[in-house]
Amino acid sequence: MTPFHDRAHAVAWRKDALELLDQRRLPGTVIYRRLTAVGEVAEAIRSMVVRGAPAIGIAAAYGVVLAARARHAENPHRWRERVAADLAMLAAARPTAVNLVWALRRMEGIIAEMEGDPVERLLAQAWAIHQEDIAANRRMGELGAALLGKRGAVLTHCNAGALATGGYGTALGVIRRGHEAGLIERVYADETRPWLQGARLTAWELVQDGIPVTLLADGAAAALMQRGGVRWVIVGADRIAANGDVANKIGTYYLAVAARYHGVRFMVVAPTSTVDMRIASGAEIPIEQRAAEELLTFGGQPVAATGAEVWNPSFDVTPAALVDALVTERGVALAPDGEKMARLMAA
Amino acid sequence: MTPFHDRAHAVAWRKDALELLDQRRLPGTVIYRRLTAVGEVAEAIRSMVVRGAPAIGIAAAYGVVLAARARHAENPHRWRERVAADLAMLAAARPTAVNLVWALRRMEGIIAEMEGDPVERLLAQAWAIHQEDIAANRRMGELGAALLGKRGAVLTHCNAGALATGGYGTALGVIRRGHEAGLIERVYADETRPWLQGARLTAWELVQDGIPVTLLADGAAAALMQRGGVRWVIVGADRIAANGDVANKIGTYYLAVAARYHGVRFMVVAPTSTVDMRIASGAEIPIEQRAAEELLTFGGQPVAATGAEVWNPSFDVTPAALVDALVTERGVALAPDGEKMARLMAA
Repeated sequence: MTPFHDRAHAVAWRKDALELLDQRRLPGTVIYRRLTAVGEVAEAIRSMVVRGAPAIGIAAAYGVVLAARARHAENPHRWRERVAADLAMLAAARPTAVNLVWALRRMEGIIAEMEGDPVERLLAQAWAIHQEDIAANRRMGELGAALLGKRGAVLTHCNAGALATGGYGTALGVIRRGHEAGLIERVYADETRPWLQGARLTAWELVQDGIPVTLLADGAAAALMQRGGVRWVIVGADRIAANGDVANKIGTYYLAVAARYHGVRFMVVAPTSTVDMRIASGAEIPIEQRAAEELLTFGGQPVAATGAEVWNPSFDVTPAALVDALVTERGVALAPDGEKMARLMAA
Repeated sequence: MTPFHDRAHAVAWRKDALELLDQRRLPGTVIYRRLTAVGEVAEAIRSMVVRGAPAIGIAAAYGVVLAARARHAENPHRWRERVAADLAMLAAARPTAVNLVWALRRMEGIIAEMEGDPVERLLAQAWAIHQEDIAANRRMGELGAALLGKRGAVLTHCNAGALATGGYGTALGVIRRGHEAGLIERVYADETRPWLQGARLTAWELVQDGIPVTLLADGAAAALMQRGGVRWVIVGADRIAANGDVANKIGTYYLAVAARYHGVRFMVVAPTSTVDMRIASGAEIPIEQRAAEELLTFGGQPVAATGAEVWNPSFDVTPAALVDALVTERGVALAPDGEKMARLMAA
């Protein structure tokens, strides 16, 4: 059987439209949404129809194609100004993942120098961004798996799989490759409150690929490490600063602290499109706060007392000092720091 | 207005029956269940109608009254043997909290030496266990609040409040007293997956007492400590070993590791009925595994992929070395160890 990561896709261009797998409905319902306007793409990113830093960047790139097609049809002479506003709207859809801005910059670069109907060339660029991401994931899968060492269990958080990327996955790419190579016997997946990406998405991906997966409550991760057997924590990233600090799904920093305490190694897997060299350290990364309802309700039903306040940051920042290995498609930085990051990005 | 902890009760003896507040339905529905048979009490403990180590012990004590009443009516000469089976059933209802066994031992002690109709004397003993627990909570509230130092925020996990005890609470007793004394400006409450005791119970208690409470996902606790402002983590316990190791709700150990990493102090508040001096260390404490459905479904709806395995321990063990203060009704042990525990229990 074709493996899951080759069958499913979070993002695709199909019949002149952007097709997104609605990740809010998984795993119960597999439904693809067809988007034909850039405003729909921004809303799909905001509302997490599509999520995961690389997947957001790819969806936004295709969104620019939709924007240019509409604006060029409206006015073939003034379309660039109007697309600029659409780009700003896309960029503002979610603040933390830098892949979004990175992809928009690549699309902008093409727009600036282009003559005539922009659709075909922009689509080629969006397609290139998409395919390069898949290739980067495959490469990172190889590089990360080569670090695993002797066979054992790994722990992952949130979803950094095929659903979060152009395909194959970052953290789950390493896990897929490591499992294939016989180095990973079991994957522990944090359920990842409040959005349950671990339960809903990661477990779903791994079950379909036949990789043994055990779900646990987020709070159980330290007790799991205390028992022994977990050799690596492997996660993705939403933005990496020039000093190697990593913004990723809330709970990642907690895992990094516990991993260090237990002598479990901590691997971050992300394409260089996630690295933001303009930002000196994690302290400068904007952290998105999401709605209180994500904690106060579940499936529309209230679960908490009326009157309680909520702190619901979507991401946290793990200092580079807690990262044992940063895996990118350009290479690996062990114990990353400013110097190693500069060398990696210059490669 | 009468404070919440004086109005609400998790456990009460009323009109010749045991009355339990059904904690599975909170905060949406406040419903009291009337139990007249010991089998119902064991089932209520198993299914978490009543939960919290001290509250379970008190409920079980009243359960012995129900058992003795029925068995004595059946056969006034052979009732003791039959009650012994009921006691064994109660003891097996949940394995980790030792208060259950402790309360049953106290009831057994009375049974052994008693003549005639046992109900009145057993009820007096159950009532004493209940009232002593409330008094212990009040005393621990004073002792714990005295440790807080300068005004700030605290973080708590699960529910160690009026709902988990005879009344007032262990960890929430210290928090109530500390807030009253102007030493606690805000309480951060982990939602505490999978059962959401923090969201459903702790936030509910604190909102009703007018104590500012902010709910957060379990995974966000380390990021909260990283920001600064949290001075103490304050939790209850389900069993404490002779060396000071603490079994408590899953996620507690994770908090203790993160607290130590961030220089946040870690306080455990529990009556001496939670201390099990027959157990040398936390490694010997039986840890209850609960049903996979607690993670695979939410409100009856599936949230995780079919085929995922589940690791769902209800408790974890925090080594004594990570505990800065253990507060009991007999006194405080700072940085508890075997010697300090022995001295405390001999007091």
